[in-house]
Amino acid sequence: MGSAKSKKSDSDSKNNKCLSDEVINLDQGDPTAFQEYWMKMKDRCTVVIPGWDHMSYFSDTTDVCWFLEPELAKAIKALHGAVGNAATEEHYIVVGTGSSQLCQAALFALSSLSDANPVSIVAAVPYYSTYVDEGSYLRSELYKWEGDARTFDKKGPYIELVTSPNNPDGTMREPVVKRSDHGGKVIHDFAYYWPHYTPITRRQDHDLMLFTFSKITGHAGSRIGWALVKDIEVAKKMVQYLTINSIGVSKESQTRATTILNELTKTCRTQSESFFEYGYEKMKSRWERLREVVESGDAFTLPNHSQAFCNFFGKTISTSPAFAWLGCKEERDLGSLLKGKKVLTRGGDRFGSDKKYVRVSMLSRDDDFDVFLHRLATIKNLKCIEP
Amino acid sequence: MGSAKSKKSDSDSKNNKCLSDEVINLDQGDPTAFQEYWMKMKDRCTVVIPGWDHMSYFSDTTDVCWFLEPELAKAIKALHGAVGNAATEEHYIVVGTGSSQLCQAALFALSSLSDANPVSIVAAVPYYSTYVDEGSYLRSELYKWEGDARTFDKKGPYIELVTSPNNPDGTMREPVVKRSDHGGKVIHDFAYYWPHYTPITRRQDHDLMLFTFSKITGHAGSRIGWALVKDIEVAKKMVQYLTINSIGVSKESQTRATTILNELTKTCRTQSESFFEYGYEKMKSRWERLREVVESGDAFTLPNHSQAFCNFFGKTISTSPAFAWLGCKEERDLGSLLKGKKVLTRGGDRFGSDKKYVRVSMLSRDDDFDVFLHRLATIKNLKCIEP
Repeated sequence: MGSAKSKKSDSDSKNNKCLSDEVINLDQGDPTAFQEYWMKMKDRCTVVIPGWDHMSYFSDTTDVCWFLEPELAKAIKALHGAVGNAATEEHYIVVGTGSSQLCQAALFALSSLSDANPVSIVAAVPYYSTYVDEGSYLRSELYKWEGDARTFDKKGPYIELVTSPNNPDGTMREPVVKRSDHGGKVIHDFAYYWPHYTPITRRQDHDLMLFTFSKITGHAGSRIGWALVKDIEVAKKMVQYLTINSIGVSKESQTRATTILNELTKTCRTQSESFFEYGYEKMKSRWERLREVVESGDAFTLPNHSQAFCNFFGKTISTSPAFAWLGCKEERDLGSLLKGKKVLTRGGDRFGSDKKYVRVSMLSRDDDFDVFLHRLATIKNLKCIEP
Repeated sequence: MGSAKSKKSDSDSKNNKCLSDEVINLDQGDPTAFQEYWMKMKDRCTVVIPGWDHMSYFSDTTDVCWFLEPELAKAIKALHGAVGNAATEEHYIVVGTGSSQLCQAALFALSSLSDANPVSIVAAVPYYSTYVDEGSYLRSELYKWEGDARTFDKKGPYIELVTSPNNPDGTMREPVVKRSDHGGKVIHDFAYYWPHYTPITRRQDHDLMLFTFSKITGHAGSRIGWALVKDIEVAKKMVQYLTINSIGVSKESQTRATTILNELTKTCRTQSESFFEYGYEKMKSRWERLREVVESGDAFTLPNHSQAFCNFFGKTISTSPAFAWLGCKEERDLGSLLKGKKVLTRGGDRFGSDKKYVRVSMLSRDDDFDVFLHRLATIKNLKCIEP
């Protein structure tokens, strides 16, 4: 099991898990990997909310996004400023119950404001599997999921979803639909454009950018996301969606996100305390261990992630995505094969790709990650494994 | 201004507001009336959340509603048990970002499980204005808003939304669509079926019932609602909606709702502490003052709310709805008329009714309610007012 075994893997709990039949779930990207950091921070980011606080629907009736807490808006701007990953100056901030809700708000806004409907929704393969559900579950006449952006050739208005770094494969992306009629809009999903996952090479400054609290710090349970939106009409339509859909966003979660984001900004230049330093080291170590296991056998493939100069860290660093896009060297259903080893992953077909690939969460708890590597290391060659 | 003037209305702040041009917003039902109760409770319902808590998407992977905190489920069951307003034993609990999101989840669930689409959505006039938006904003092929339930005569499957007590007019309601083909489903919205608004005359036990934290205790900013659902397939489909729509519901809000609902249950039989006693007295007093103003002139009408024996209070009590369905005795646009007096209300046309009616929130802060009564009392006769 190589280095996976050498690091903390001898605890009773781990060995019990390895030996047991326990199923390891790496299907969802539940970001519990970072909990140990927050436990070390102890009371630093504790929030205290009295019973009489945050009772109103309204946060700031003068803001386009009337349910956005002004302190959260400040915290978001300060963090983007400190990290240098996105411009906020000429953007309206729209808060959502996670970035999924905001993505749907953006689809609603852009398609409602379009001259013709339905608007086609596309994303380049392999795309985030949930986009398919978001674009089709309500059978809306406003928009229609049309699949792979690279082969898209329909006439009429379209929206391209660009996830960069990409979920599931970690590549940096640009729009791929090339049409001269200017009928396209782009939603940039920057959920993973943070320095613990990828080098920050430029300050993004697009019309509509999505971010999520879940994947920065690991606080997925809070369900907080935000959009940075240049066009006020688009921002207003997104707010209309959120007003009808859920009459705004939890104030308690906004309060907690404010506290935690402010802590990130405050400590981001203190190496011993910086969350991004911690997160970067953790992700880098996991990727080194995974690559070691994959390279020790002849069964699997991984993408080659590039190195680049990171403006935030001030040095050249590697890419350490939140998901591994694991492939196998033969034409096999890798998801089923790993399920046989009691490891749940998400099959490549869900991402518009092939079943010989799976998406594996790199954000699980340490012991689950250790068990995953241990089980993966037992598969040296697919020829020995029954179909 | 009658009793409105006699109670606390001589403060400088109030007089300033009365004399000033300040706009009083009673359009939304922002339930800030109850904040003073929670301030009196001081630290009793304070929640403390450390930085490392509630990080996962998951609350209980064995529950149909995997993002529902088990402690919140217990608190909901205990409160319904103590108040006696709804049966929970044979129901699954689905938590939502407010009951608006749950209503949309229910529309999705019932129409996805229907043999034919679109399913018609209807509600008896006057209906909650937001249902129109919820049923139509996404132009879903699954369902179609068809307006008044009383005149509905289309073939095919339908969903009737029954709000009881009704928003906007406070009447207790039953389904009104009478068809023999059993093609109809009912969503019971019990947002206001609590003893401070209406006598609890029976323990409701329907297939699909919606409740919201906002209108019980006034914590609208938390965005917590729940559905009690008998059919597991409907519950599963609602959870599917919530998973795609927002990947669950804020854990911070669930934690706070748990603390506050448990306090309600604990103190509901202690007269000096009971929120329901407090809320009932407050609402009763506001209604008495409003009726006094209305009856002192010849301009306005109010519904006659019945009295009934309340199983919770153990006595006959009056109905004190969260909204006043104010009418005028002439064919006038009452919303515009009141807007001229710097009072914002929601026009009757938004509820499928007539502009001679408006919905007025009875849940504003004390000073806003006082100013509203003061301004209303200046209108003794509509004949004196320019159209």
